[in-house]
This record gives sequence, structure tokens and C-alpha cells, in this order.
Amino acid sequence: MELWFTEEWLPGLKLSVRVTAIVFNKKTKFQDLCIYDTEQLGRILTLDNVIQTTEIDEYIYHESLVHVPLFAHPSPERVLIVGGGDGGSLREALKHPSVREVTVVDIDGDVIEASKAYLPALNSGFSDPRAKVIVGDGPAFVDKARSEYDAVIVDSTDPIGPGQALFTEEFYSSIKRALRPGGLFAAQTESPILMPAVVRDIFRRIGRVFPVARVFTAPVPTYPGGLWSFACASLGTDPNLPARQPNEAWGLRYYSPEMRERAFILNPKMKHDIIES
Amino acid sequence: MELWFTEEWLPGLKLSVRVTAIVFNKKTKFQDLCIYDTEQLGRILTLDNVIQTTEIDEYIYHESLVHVPLFAHPSPERVLIVGGGDGGSLREALKHPSVREVTVVDIDGDVIEASKAYLPALNSGFSDPRAKVIVGDGPAFVDKARSEYDAVIVDSTDPIGPGQALFTEEFYSSIKRALRPGGLFAAQTESPILMPAVVRDIFRRIGRVFPVARVFTAPVPTYPGGLWSFACASLGTDPNLPARQPNEAWGLRYYSPEMRERAFILNPKMKHDIIES
Repeated sequence: MELWFTEEWLPGLKLSVRVTAIVFNKKTKFQDLCIYDTEQLGRILTLDNVIQTTEIDEYIYHESLVHVPLFAHPSPERVLIVGGGDGGSLREALKHPSVREVTVVDIDGDVIEASKAYLPALNSGFSDPRAKVIVGDGPAFVDKARSEYDAVIVDSTDPIGPGQALFTEEFYSSIKRALRPGGLFAAQTESPILMPAVVRDIFRRIGRVFPVARVFTAPVPTYPGGLWSFACASLGTDPNLPARQPNEAWGLRYYSPEMRERAFILNPKMKHDIIES
Repeated sequence: MELWFTEEWLPGLKLSVRVTAIVFNKKTKFQDLCIYDTEQLGRILTLDNVIQTTEIDEYIYHESLVHVPLFAHPSPERVLIVGGGDGGSLREALKHPSVREVTVVDIDGDVIEASKAYLPALNSGFSDPRAKVIVGDGPAFVDKARSEYDAVIVDSTDPIGPGQALFTEEFYSSIKRALRPGGLFAAQTESPILMPAVVRDIFRRIGRVFPVARVFTAPVPTYPGGLWSFACASLGTDPNLPARQPNEAWGLRYYSPEMRERAFILNPKMKHDIIES
């Protein structure tokens, strides 16, 4: 038997990986959740046939999304992760010694349970006493928060289906209200090479809400186009100025102060496509 | 009729793109050459079923490979491109006003002819009077040169089949002899995320020949893993110190002085995998 998982990156462009075992599959209340073992990407988690995380490159995505905002803060204590049910962002946020509480709000409890059961590379944070896990609607949760978090990290699916509500101006406004003074917001913002107009539109919406909003990128081989974009926004703090840095004991594989600076540098075409057009 | 071109990136991992037209196909003396039109990648050229160049990302690859070495030279006059029959590297090298001659040596004349006929986005350099095109064996050609070039650029296929000879220590030694004082060497060196051991071995060989050898990277969505590595080596010049910079009239889409600096910064895992292991 030869099984392949195939993801349509765009109509007419797809990535396929040979599957050695179907580890878990469930039609949840919100989406089709699968965990596969593969030869080349290690264990992978897909939602509605879209790769969310793979063992070979999840560290690049999670370290970028979490450490870029958190290292811009001198002493983050309370962090909110919207989405992120696989636990990868939680694992990274808990590495900051000042952090006293990380709240993960994911709409799909089955993703969290599947990660706890089948993703040992990602799920270590769930057993940390500082982790607070809530199964519920992210926008509704954020909407009730007032000046509560030093960082809000949106670790979402694509802006279709359940993820759509996490890319609206209304949601960004409620995140702004949820931040303490000096707080930062970060989010994944899609493929800058294959879908520059989508990234541009997301940044226009973020830019209408936050006084400071910067694009950064990181290579994620299993996401469409292999390069991914992220937002880091704030009420005034420059997201590009790190307030602290990690030491070797953190065991980071992607993030470093040099890589952080690198991440904010855009090529001329990307600047034009996303910022200036 | 629905046609797909599928490239096996690694055993068990593949990229597929829908083909709207087969523009050209020939079994040449050396390889199976195809040019396709596609919805998502524009016109693409493949050799032995491996994507060499696509309209959507060739500028990233060619600007990186050519401008990183050439801008490290204060006044490059004579440039040798080994491989590069599609003309993309030639087009970029000719943008440097000091350049008086660019020699392209490609083993497969059919690639050059196909580019002239079907790749208008890449072939403009072939009609420049400073271009000298030779159909022949790259290593044999370089072996005869003594202190003749300000830059030697190896724009090759992968280190299998005809490309294999372009990744040997003997070839790197003959490139060293072919360089004028102050000259630079650059080459594509494969996928640093999916094949770090291959990249490491190439750099060991380059490092045994050149006193200064640096790795740099650029995102190329249609190459395996989406991030690509390159070498820039010299007899002493620091490849990371640009001697000049482009102005807006060059119309560069990827290269800039900031992007150059960015390209040489490696993440901790990649440093370990390629340099320190």
C-alpha cells in the first residue's frame, strides 16, 4: 500500500508527501483533523487537508511567531495565544522566565487533545502549571479582555473557514484593547511570494488599528511557497528592538538576535507588493 | 485534458504544478529538456524532470547568485558563468557597468537555443555584444584558464548526472586558478533544510580550496524545501562586504545592500548542520 497526503497550495499547485502511518483522524465539530507519520516531514498535523505543523520545520514557525514579540518586551508576564492548539507556541512562550501565565484559547478542543496524545515534540507546555487552556471562541474571549496581556499571539489557520474571524479589523481592535501598556501583538499572515495581495490586505487592516505594525518573514518549507510572513504590532514599542536575548540553555534552533534583525528585512519586490502598493 | 508536471523533491516528497501548454520538449545529448506554461509558476524550464527556472521566482535565484559575488568586487570586468544556459545569470551580470565580457559555458547547447527561442524573460543577455557563449564542458574550459576572471559563477543543475563534475574539489581548485587577484567564486549549493549533509559536504570541499568561503541563502519557492543555499568564496576578499551598490535604475527585485547582509545570517540549527558539524 502506498499512501500520499496531498495539499493544494493554490489551484494548480500542490505538495505531496508519502504517508507511512495514519496516526489519528477525526471529523471534529469544526474541521477534519489528521495526524500522519511521513518519511520526509516526520509527524504532521493537518486540518481540512492543510498542513499545520510538521516535525521538520515547526521550530522555525513557532520560534519566529513567539520569540519575535516576546523578546521585544522587557518582562512579559501574561501571554495569550489564540489558536495554537498543537501546543508549539505555548512551548516556546513558556521558555521566557518572566512569564507567569500563558492562556491558550483554541476553538477546537480535539486539536488540543490530539496534540497531548500524539505530538510529543510539541505538547510539553500543556503540563506546565503556568499554562491555562481554554476551549472556546478566540474573538469572543479577546473581546472581553481589557489591558490584560503583555503579548497576544494569533497562531491561526488560513483566513478561510474557522480561521476567517481571526483576520478582521474588529478582531485586531479587540486585541489592541486586550493589551497592557507596552504590549505586543503577533500573528501569522500567509505566503508573501504566492499571495502578496492577501498579505498586503491583512497588513492594511492591522495598520488601521495599531500605530506600529511590521512585517517579518521566515522560511517554512511545508507552507505554500516555502516562505511565510508574520505581523508584529504594538501600541508604540518598536518590534524590531529586542529588549532581551536568549542564552544557549534555551536550545533555540531558529531564533537568535541576528535572525530577528534579518527577519524584518524585506526585498524590494516584497516591500512594493505588501507595503507600498 | 488536465496535465500536471510533478517533481520528486526527495523520495516521498513532491511538488506538482498544472501545465497549460507544453511549449518545447527535446531529449538533448545530455538531458530531457522541457519548457511548460503553468498557471501558478508562469513559464518553467525543467531538465530531467527537475525545475531549473520559473517565471515567478527566477529573479530571487539569479539576483542572489550573481550580485552577491559581483557587488563584492570593486570593478568586475571579466565574468565566467559555468552552466546558466537559460541566460538568467548572464542577464544579471551584464547589469554591472564595469563588465566588459561575460562568458557562458554550458555543456548543452539545446538549453541555450531553447532559452533564446522561448524564455524572453531570461534571454535578453544573449544579444548583448559583451556576451560570449560557448557550448562545451565547464570543468575542461575552466581548467585551461589562468588568472583570467574577476568572478566565476557556477549556475549548475544538482550534483547528479551532468552536474556532478561541478561539485568536485578538483573543479573548485581549477576555479581558484582561473580567478584574477581579488576575484570571487559563487555557486548554488542545494537545499539547506532538506539536505543539510549535502550542503555541508559541498562546503567542506570548497573550504579545502578557498581561504574564505561563506554560505548564504535565499528563498526559492520552487526548489526543494523552498530555501536555497549558495557559496561565495574568494582568495581573501570578504564576500560579505559590498564594494558597490545598485541604484533604482537597475530594477532589481530581490537584491539590495540590506538583503545581501541578511543572506549571510544563518540560524543556529543551520550553522550547526552546515558549518560546525
